[in-house]
Amino acid sequence: MTSQMNIDALVERRERLLGPGNPLFYDEPVHLVRGEGVWLYGADGKQYLDCYNNVPCVGHCHPRVVEALCKQAATLNTHTRYLHENILDYAELLLAKFDDSLDRIAFACTGSEANDLAMRIARTNSGGEGFICTNSTYHGNTAAVAQLSSIFEPIGGYGKNVRMVPWPDSYRAPDGLSGETLADFYIKEVRAAIASFQADGIKLAGIVLCPIFANEGLPNVPAGYMSKAIELVRAAGGYYIADEVQSGFGRTGEWWGHAASGVVPDILTLGKPMGAGHPISGVVANGALLDHYRQQEMYFNTFGGNPVSCAVGQAVVEVIDSEGLVANAKDVGSYVLEKFTELKVKHEMIGDVRGSGLFFGIDLVKVRDSKEPAPEAAGYVVNKMRDSGILMSKIGEHDNVLKLRPPLCFSKENADLLVSTLDEHLAAA
Amino acid sequence: MTSQMNIDALVERRERLLGPGNPLFYDEPVHLVRGEGVWLYGADGKQYLDCYNNVPCVGHCHPRVVEALCKQAATLNTHTRYLHENILDYAELLLAKFDDSLDRIAFACTGSEANDLAMRIARTNSGGEGFICTNSTYHGNTAAVAQLSSIFEPIGGYGKNVRMVPWPDSYRAPDGLSGETLADFYIKEVRAAIASFQADGIKLAGIVLCPIFANEGLPNVPAGYMSKAIELVRAAGGYYIADEVQSGFGRTGEWWGHAASGVVPDILTLGKPMGAGHPISGVVANGALLDHYRQQEMYFNTFGGNPVSCAVGQAVVEVIDSEGLVANAKDVGSYVLEKFTELKVKHEMIGDVRGSGLFFGIDLVKVRDSKEPAPEAAGYVVNKMRDSGILMSKIGEHDNVLKLRPPLCFSKENADLLVSTLDEHLAAA
Repeated sequence: MTSQMNIDALVERRERLLGPGNPLFYDEPVHLVRGEGVWLYGADGKQYLDCYNNVPCVGHCHPRVVEALCKQAATLNTHTRYLHENILDYAELLLAKFDDSLDRIAFACTGSEANDLAMRIARTNSGGEGFICTNSTYHGNTAAVAQLSSIFEPIGGYGKNVRMVPWPDSYRAPDGLSGETLADFYIKEVRAAIASFQADGIKLAGIVLCPIFANEGLPNVPAGYMSKAIELVRAAGGYYIADEVQSGFGRTGEWWGHAASGVVPDILTLGKPMGAGHPISGVVANGALLDHYRQQEMYFNTFGGNPVSCAVGQAVVEVIDSEGLVANAKDVGSYVLEKFTELKVKHEMIGDVRGSGLFFGIDLVKVRDSKEPAPEAAGYVVNKMRDSGILMSKIGEHDNVLKLRPPLCFSKENADLLVSTLDEHLAAA
Repeated sequence: MTSQMNIDALVERRERLLGPGNPLFYDEPVHLVRGEGVWLYGADGKQYLDCYNNVPCVGHCHPRVVEALCKQAATLNTHTRYLHENILDYAELLLAKFDDSLDRIAFACTGSEANDLAMRIARTNSGGEGFICTNSTYHGNTAAVAQLSSIFEPIGGYGKNVRMVPWPDSYRAPDGLSGETLADFYIKEVRAAIASFQADGIKLAGIVLCPIFANEGLPNVPAGYMSKAIELVRAAGGYYIADEVQSGFGRTGEWWGHAASGVVPDILTLGKPMGAGHPISGVVANGALLDHYRQQEMYFNTFGGNPVSCAVGQAVVEVIDSEGLVANAKDVGSYVLEKFTELKVKHEMIGDVRGSGLFFGIDLVKVRDSKEPAPEAAGYVVNKMRDSGILMSKIGEHDNVLKLRPPLCFSKENADLLVSTLDEHLAAA
């Protein structure tokens, strides 16, 4: 049993050992001790429906993934300077999920490492150093990648090699623009960023985008935006780095987030769900790009691509396939989106409902007409949902977008519980 | 059975999926399928004595570590935004191994991530951005850390915020200097680096050193060098970041590599052996330093400090303690060093034998008087040892230093096999 006293003691101990400034979710932090499928269990026995965690994409503690982990960990764990078949079997299985142009992979341990490496692959191949990102995003925690993280200012401030463009917001669109006109409005900003680099004599290396703009709040990307933006970047000699750390592995109801726009990235990074919690990440690119980089810099990652990580990664892909989780994400995702759209009719405070597959954003507003963001209401709902045994969070430029991103094995029955509980707390918010 | 044909097929497949430029050990790569204690087994059934791998510090596939991994992976794996006791139990156990001034820890996944973070902690606290490292080292693979890697030139070249100083070589010492005079010679270089920053108006952030100079070739550090160098750095407002990724966790016959000099680091990074192969790393520092950093930048690492990683990390520390592996490293290490010193009497080509605990460098030379490095002989011996079933490698500025770094459970019996086999191949080299 975790009493409030125990929670306080844990928080105190945590501050002493790890320091303050380590973020914890919820006004009353959750103390978890067990997970299974879409369910998490508190130390006090309380059961939570996990509507937040994308990392355990196949469900918490999936037996087949755990078995692959344990079997390989008990047999051999070394590094890539010896030959081992796991890394080859896994690479082959994974690369088959991509467009033929994406035919090589480099393994690392975290999404941050993958993005750090991807930026250098773009640099060596373009001969440039300028990167474009959006003005409300986060791509990871290394010093180089923090330069692209507009949500938090990096240590030492932003360097001259980064230009931020407004993310393609189609809900709070400028001047009420929509469709192609709106796409063109945002495209102008990309063109201006490229021109600004040119004016400063900085050659473009590329643009780094989450293809579903997850941190920005999951906008319905105006049609034509992606293809036009990437065309401009490529014309200026830069590469399209798709950060698929959040959008990959079936999350959107397709294997990869970039499928929606149809624009195939030049370089693509993977992380979070890749090992269902085991630290593994990767950079996928055309062989010519990756090989050219490797000719310039020795990249070796001690733990990256080790036999255990690859066994786990392979099991995750096999479970996604054998349990039909990509199709489930699409099917249950559509069902949830429909239910959320019904909630929107009922609750004035829901300004917009967005999402694809099993990744949703519910944009809460003070008044529907003005679209004024309601971050306090979002905070209220998130904490009330936690109290009712449903874990979720919030995101977005205005911190007012409810963020829902359950494991891919989420069912319609799970969805009904989520929707009815949300309905209740929205009514009281 | 792995035939040469199978090895060739694996290498071809590897080049197709991962690209050329991924380093493999040995002229004839080793295809491993199983590990246990100090032993590794090839696909052809061949048995290898592992005299190289420091990552599986407690021995390959240690049952207690595997058990901790499997038990926690089957129970719960989340992240640090929920409360969990593993991270606290582990942090407490680990921090107790350090000087009282080192009382806080931040978890990450790789040594590279730890060094990347450590540099930013030094930057925020010093208000500076200048870093000193040695001229023959490697600290990791992120873009920021690659700036400190003098072995490989980073993409885009070295920035203005790095100064490299000669590593304290006491074997090929300039002008035949020794002792305190030699220390003063190298100290002059540190003083010059600091002055050079001052001349360029760059404030010092710190010095990043492996306390045993592992990549440089494990020199016998001249007495007084470390304390004087660090005193200068601190007087200039910088911090001493000890990269203990290779030297930590009992490797040197002490818990930490910095114990030998007696100089307690301000910031210390951990990696490689920390999870015995599981990707976990950490930055240890005084709470004031880490907390000040956290006030300036949000650092969150999705996989860092998760319940599984912490269970594994804790098991590693417990095994090191319960099996007396630090004392074993000291004891067997002395035994091996004595045997290597006997080999030096016998073989002209051994110019110098160095090491501490279970980490050794054997400096091969063409002629003992001239000390001219013999990298070809080192390559010959390493490959012959592999053929005889003993895995080791080479390091150093001149690529001529045999590098031996077996798991900490290495026995005197293992040592005898190593020494007699080495004796044989040195005779033929």
